[in-house]
Amino acid sequence: MSQPISCTSDPTLDLAAQLISRRSVTPEDGGCMDLISARLKPLGFTLEAINRGNTVNLWARRGSAAPLVCLAGHTDVVPTGPVEQWASDPFTPTLRDGMLYGRGAADMKGSLAAFVTAVETFVARHPQHQGSIAFLLTSDEEGDATDGTVAVVEALQARGEGIDCCIVGEPTCVNRLGDMVKNGRRGSLSGRLTVKGIQGHIAYPHLAKNPIHLAAPAIAELAATEWDQGNEYFPPTTWQVSNIRGGTGATNVIPGTVDILFNFRFSTASTPEGLKSRLEAVLAKHGIDYDLAWTLGAKPFLTGRGPLVDAAMAAIREELGIETELSTTGGTSDGRFIAEICPQVIELGPVNATIHKIDECVEAAALPRLSATYCRILEKLLT
Amino acid sequence: MSQPISCTSDPTLDLAAQLISRRSVTPEDGGCMDLISARLKPLGFTLEAINRGNTVNLWARRGSAAPLVCLAGHTDVVPTGPVEQWASDPFTPTLRDGMLYGRGAADMKGSLAAFVTAVETFVARHPQHQGSIAFLLTSDEEGDATDGTVAVVEALQARGEGIDCCIVGEPTCVNRLGDMVKNGRRGSLSGRLTVKGIQGHIAYPHLAKNPIHLAAPAIAELAATEWDQGNEYFPPTTWQVSNIRGGTGATNVIPGTVDILFNFRFSTASTPEGLKSRLEAVLAKHGIDYDLAWTLGAKPFLTGRGPLVDAAMAAIREELGIETELSTTGGTSDGRFIAEICPQVIELGPVNATIHKIDECVEAAALPRLSATYCRILEKLLT
Ligand SMILES: [Zn+2]
Ligand SMILES: [Zn+2]
Repeated sequence: MSQPISCTSDPTLDLAAQLISRRSVTPEDGGCMDLISARLKPLGFTLEAINRGNTVNLWARRGSAAPLVCLAGHTDVVPTGPVEQWASDPFTPTLRDGMLYGRGAADMKGSLAAFVTAVETFVARHPQHQGSIAFLLTSDEEGDATDGTVAVVEALQARGEGIDCCIVGEPTCVNRLGDMVKNGRRGSLSGRLTVKGIQGHIAYPHLAKNPIHLAAPAIAELAATEWDQGNEYFPPTTWQVSNIRGGTGATNVIPGTVDILFNFRFSTASTPEGLKSRLEAVLAKHGIDYDLAWTLGAKPFLTGRGPLVDAAMAAIREELGIETELSTTGGTSDGRFIAEICPQVIELGPVNATIHKIDECVEAAALPRLSATYCRILEKLLT
Repeated sequence: MSQPISCTSDPTLDLAAQLISRRSVTPEDGGCMDLISARLKPLGFTLEAINRGNTVNLWARRGSAAPLVCLAGHTDVVPTGPVEQWASDPFTPTLRDGMLYGRGAADMKGSLAAFVTAVETFVARHPQHQGSIAFLLTSDEEGDATDGTVAVVEALQARGEGIDCCIVGEPTCVNRLGDMVKNGRRGSLSGRLTVKGIQGHIAYPHLAKNPIHLAAPAIAELAATEWDQGNEYFPPTTWQVSNIRGGTGATNVIPGTVDILFNFRFSTASTPEGLKSRLEAVLAKHGIDYDLAWTLGAKPFLTGRGPLVDAAMAAIREELGIETELSTTGGTSDGRFIAEICPQVIELGPVNATIHKIDECVEAAALPRLSATYCRILEKLLT
């Protein structure tokens, strides 16, 4: 049976539903931050809007003592795709067979709701807790992510305000709640390569220099290269071409250039500088004349065993009854920005099987359990 | 000094100018065939329009005896490009510093004029010549060439009418009139290759299969392959990629396929079947899953030493005072179609340095000399 929900018996589910019903397609916030702010203010949080461009970000802090534990996330969601393919309206939170459906249910309005109710419970239980708690929220994560978390981090950095531990609410689990925590992410290093040849008529190849022919053996060598073997926490660095384009469509012309876009996903076993120089050495070895523009999309970050990871593993064991797996796989997240000012960053959220898809959903019963897990982590760190 | 010309003292130059002033941008004829027909009719030619689609082609024959010597060419010209970049209007034949300017001056209205005046001279001198003379003219050479010379050849083939020798008036010379005769052309064999992989997110390459990475070593091997060493008349076969395209522009997606257009220019030392199977063997060796559509654009043709080549070489020596060079380089021409029904085909015309360019021109003094050379070839073959 399927029903839109407005008020249930669980406060985390209720708040998640209220957030889902606010249309916050990136970079819109849709009123989500106001809703969350209204819940944090009575708890004693100081609220601060940190704006950049058209993006409004929220920095909310309770207390001034160390250590500072930050809960970080985003209120924006990816577009719905064809609405008619959804079983129920993506902005009408709907319970069906134990699942809460709606855009953002898993990524990451469910986590945001669990953050809020976890802190409500924690503060009620421990009004005089040690350290401080902060929320770092943005509505610019699913889009360019240029004016979101990075803007808050830069503002904090500028005034010397560091974070000790951060939990990002990204959906990290694979099959059931608690089965995976991300304790790092690989870095992302992109290149825009133009291999230069000499254009000419295909009937006179000796007067031309075919850039596709020049590039092919280099691409073959780069694709076969072992960049590193990874390490305890990271899989090996990978290199992939995402786009290649040469020729105007004319079939009798050897093009003058070929454009190649590629990307490294790299572990902490390699550095951007090392990867750049090794790749350029391969191009040089093949005698290639080229232009190459590099973009470091994300530095890798890693949080090894220590207070935060240990607290999360123990809390998951106690609240959810399973041993979590630490992982650094997958795409990049805002954790990369926070790691600049925070030595310990992990990501923990619900099962991510449906994120960015039609009929995105989260298990309804998982939300109060996620809230309890976040609360338990806070207790381990701040009491 | 620059002057539009209308009537000069030389009949070949006059006729070339009249043809240039008729706008015959491919596939238009612009009245050129009527003009030529009006000159051939009084000489005793039987005129026959061989139409296909919207294209009008002319087959004109004088006499019924063997051998039949055919003069072949096209009345259409390539577009002018930006008219304002021309020093004089491209359809206003203009003499300047000894050069006749105009679109088609070199490719190939100068040759057509020289054909006509050569035959006028020849018939006047030898009204009872041996064999027969034919003109094969089309206005569909510079475009698709689907309804032009090939249509006439098929019509002749259908009724069992063969040609013994054919001179195509394409501009073949490099620096001065007579320095090069094309006695064959390489074949052209094209392929449209789609290398198939598995699309995926660039952060999870183990779940994808990158078709660009799969294709690269195969392209490298094909580009380095020696297909043949050519032979006495032909340079070695060449293989070139003209276009490669993979990826949608998204930089975080491994594409599912990559499309590659390539072309062989092949000598008579290789066959289309042999090249196809060798290329496909390389793809198979690299374990590539692919779709491949082949197009045989042109079979190669070759006219070795013999009556026609010898006549042309001797005529050039006697009229122009130089030893010509036989060559099979360059693009394809309508000679490839004629070779289907004619054992001896050569191409001989003026210097081709300016063809298809702004300010196309031909040396004015070369036109009567080219006419005399064509006439001398006819005398060697038909008297
Ligand atoms: Zn997210
Ligand atoms: Zn031509």
